Amino acid sequence: MSIIEQIEKPTLLLDAEKARRNIHRMAEKANKLQVRFRPHFKTHQSAEIGEWFRPEGVTAITVSSVDMAYYFARSGWQDITIAFPVNLRQVGAIRELAAQIHLELLVESAETVSFLQENLAVPVDVWVKIDSGAGRTGLAWNEFEAMSGLARQINKSSKLHLRGILTHAGHTYQAKTPDQVRRLFSQSVGRMLQARYNLQASGVGMVEISVGDTPGCSLSDNFGGVSEIRPGNFVFYDAEQNAVGSCAAKDIAVALACPVVAKHPERGEAVVYGGAIHLSKDWMVEDGRMIHGKIALPQGDGWGEPLGGAYVDRLSQEHGLVHLEKEDLDKLRIGDLICVLPVHACLTVQVMGEYLTLEGKKVRTMNK
Amino acid sequence: MSIIEQIEKPTLLLDAEKARRNIHRMAEKANKLQVRFRPHFKTHQSAEIGEWFRPEGVTAITVSSVDMAYYFARSGWQDITIAFPVNLRQVGAIRELAAQIHLELLVESAETVSFLQENLAVPVDVWVKIDSGAGRTGLAWNEFEAMSGLARQINKSSKLHLRGILTHAGHTYQAKTPDQVRRLFSQSVGRMLQARYNLQASGVGMVEISVGDTPGCSLSDNFGGVSEIRPGNFVFYDAEQNAVGSCAAKDIAVALACPVVAKHPERGEAVVYGGAIHLSKDWMVEDGRMIHGKIALPQGDGWGEPLGGAYVDRLSQEHGLVHLEKEDLDKLRIGDLICVLPVHACLTVQVMGEYLTLEGKKVRTMNK
Repeated sequence: MSIIEQIEKPTLLLDAEKARRNIHRMAEKANKLQVRFRPHFKTHQSAEIGEWFRPEGVTAITVSSVDMAYYFARSGWQDITIAFPVNLRQVGAIRELAAQIHLELLVESAETVSFLQENLAVPVDVWVKIDSGAGRTGLAWNEFEAMSGLARQINKSSKLHLRGILTHAGHTYQAKTPDQVRRLFSQSVGRMLQARYNLQASGVGMVEISVGDTPGCSLSDNFGGVSEIRPGNFVFYDAEQNAVGSCAAKDIAVALACPVVAKHPERGEAVVYGGAIHLSKDWMVEDGRMIHGKIALPQGDGWGEPLGGAYVDRLSQEHGLVHLEKEDLDKLRIGDLICVLPVHACLTVQVMGEYLTLEGKKVRTMNK
Repeated sequence: MSIIEQIEKPTLLLDAEKARRNIHRMAEKANKLQVRFRPHFKTHQSAEIGEWFRPEGVTAITVSSVDMAYYFARSGWQDITIAFPVNLRQVGAIRELAAQIHLELLVESAETVSFLQENLAVPVDVWVKIDSGAGRTGLAWNEFEAMSGLARQINKSSKLHLRGILTHAGHTYQAKTPDQVRRLFSQSVGRMLQARYNLQASGVGMVEISVGDTPGCSLSDNFGGVSEIRPGNFVFYDAEQNAVGSCAAKDIAVALACPVVAKHPERGEAVVYGGAIHLSKDWMVEDGRMIHGKIALPQGDGWGEPLGGAYVDRLSQEHGLVHLEKEDLDKLRIGDLICVLPVHACLTVQVMGEYLTLEGKKVRTMNK
């Protein structure tokens, strides 16, 4: 009996070979384009998977929280950027960590810079967070005065060293085509170059540029002037990345195996054990419809291509309502397994907290 | 310094007094209306909070998975309904549990009934799951032939005892007003009565009716003919329940305390440390807008009333983008805490896995 056939309840399958291939491909690209590869580990959140990056020459990583920085520092990572605006309430933990490893932080306000100057013990590198179009955090890319003011404040600080300007062009996730991704990414890089030019003109000196986002880093070759890239999602990819063209369906390295518990042919649906607590409630739009995952069937030791016309239509706490074409639904029996390709791998990994490789090995994350 | 002021990172606050009051109110109502109170423990998922139900005379509970049944059986619950279609792949675990406690299962297909007959060791009680309008799982309430066929199959089985018919009128969650909730709930109860009448007419004999759903159980007094109620969400309530009128804002017993990490006055937003991994990505519609939570400010040892015009607008993995009225945003400083009243308490509890009471005590769930 294959590993998959032994599964009893919702289980996050990991195709390690695909993940390693995804890592190798991105490392190779960074190498070719001569940008530093500082992958974001918030997607896999696993010390063991982190080790798969070392043979590719990766020595510096990105994380999204102080706790995650501690977790990876414990498994030997010595150069970590916390790519989240500094949480002043955790300054004690940040101070301790900065004494142990090379730590890089993100700042975007004078208040935070002053607070760090007063509360840090050893100096840290900081990046000014720039909003290059995503509209989430950071100084707007064209707020040159605020930016140079903040840079000068950092340069005066004895505890902070200005490493550069950093952005996350997260709006590439909303693109509909590879060309749209490339345009948004190039626009974002162009804005960063302009921001740096203005900083230099205001006497701040030369600084680095850091960009991140899986769609842009996967699809663009236009990294001129960029010092480092911080993609994360590419390690597994997912249905959303496949839809925008960042990856092929066969590159998706995780799938949630779910037992079928009921069938409703009258409405073309199967009910699976696999709900919001297993997939998260993230969604994407496909053919004008909000969906929560694509569907594949177990095949050999893994899973096959996504089924046409099949998707997770609704989720409640433990239930997944899966729409299938009549032919596929007819073949399915209660007790069978189906594989859900998640919309957003990062959140599915977060809620599941643990993987099962296709070789039957459990791989833990920091959450389990 | 108050308990809340000491918080460093996203923390799920629990107002135990409010939760106990919510439990007492529902128990009292069930008692008055003479229906069995079999609360759903999937909302709190905590052995410790489970104990708060015992003084109200609760001896029977509902859970949503085999694992959750084991967890509560270990803390002394002897009468448990797993309100989810039987997952055939876990029949080994179900068989073991059925030998230890009084276990009740849900069935909706001939395949599942046959499988249980073949694979159980000791007999269990079963409920036929009925779809009384929610469109999720169960036989449609007016599929009388299928229903009586299944009931007869169960009656012939030596391993299954037909306890009754069970529904979850989950579509009350989509109602916009208390009157709509009451209408949908009454319609659902009416359909269950009709289904039972037809079962009796077909010679199946008298069976019980079980209904559940927090909006209906909170707002309706029309339980004629119902044997038991299984609400879960009422223990904490949430922003969604408040919006539909199931509870007052002051009844909401959980809130996620989040540090403010950035401010963007130009777009009326604060950025908080508190994202999809802390709140889940559940959403509701308010004023035509998709929102992910309401906002209150710390007050004394707890939190105050929800702020008008304030809501969580967007969530990414760790970021929450919070819209606030200018006056409220002006008062807020980086490093302050705000409290997010979750859209859906069940999913927030699931991702957080642990509570902090207003007295500073940690309360664990089965997930941590």
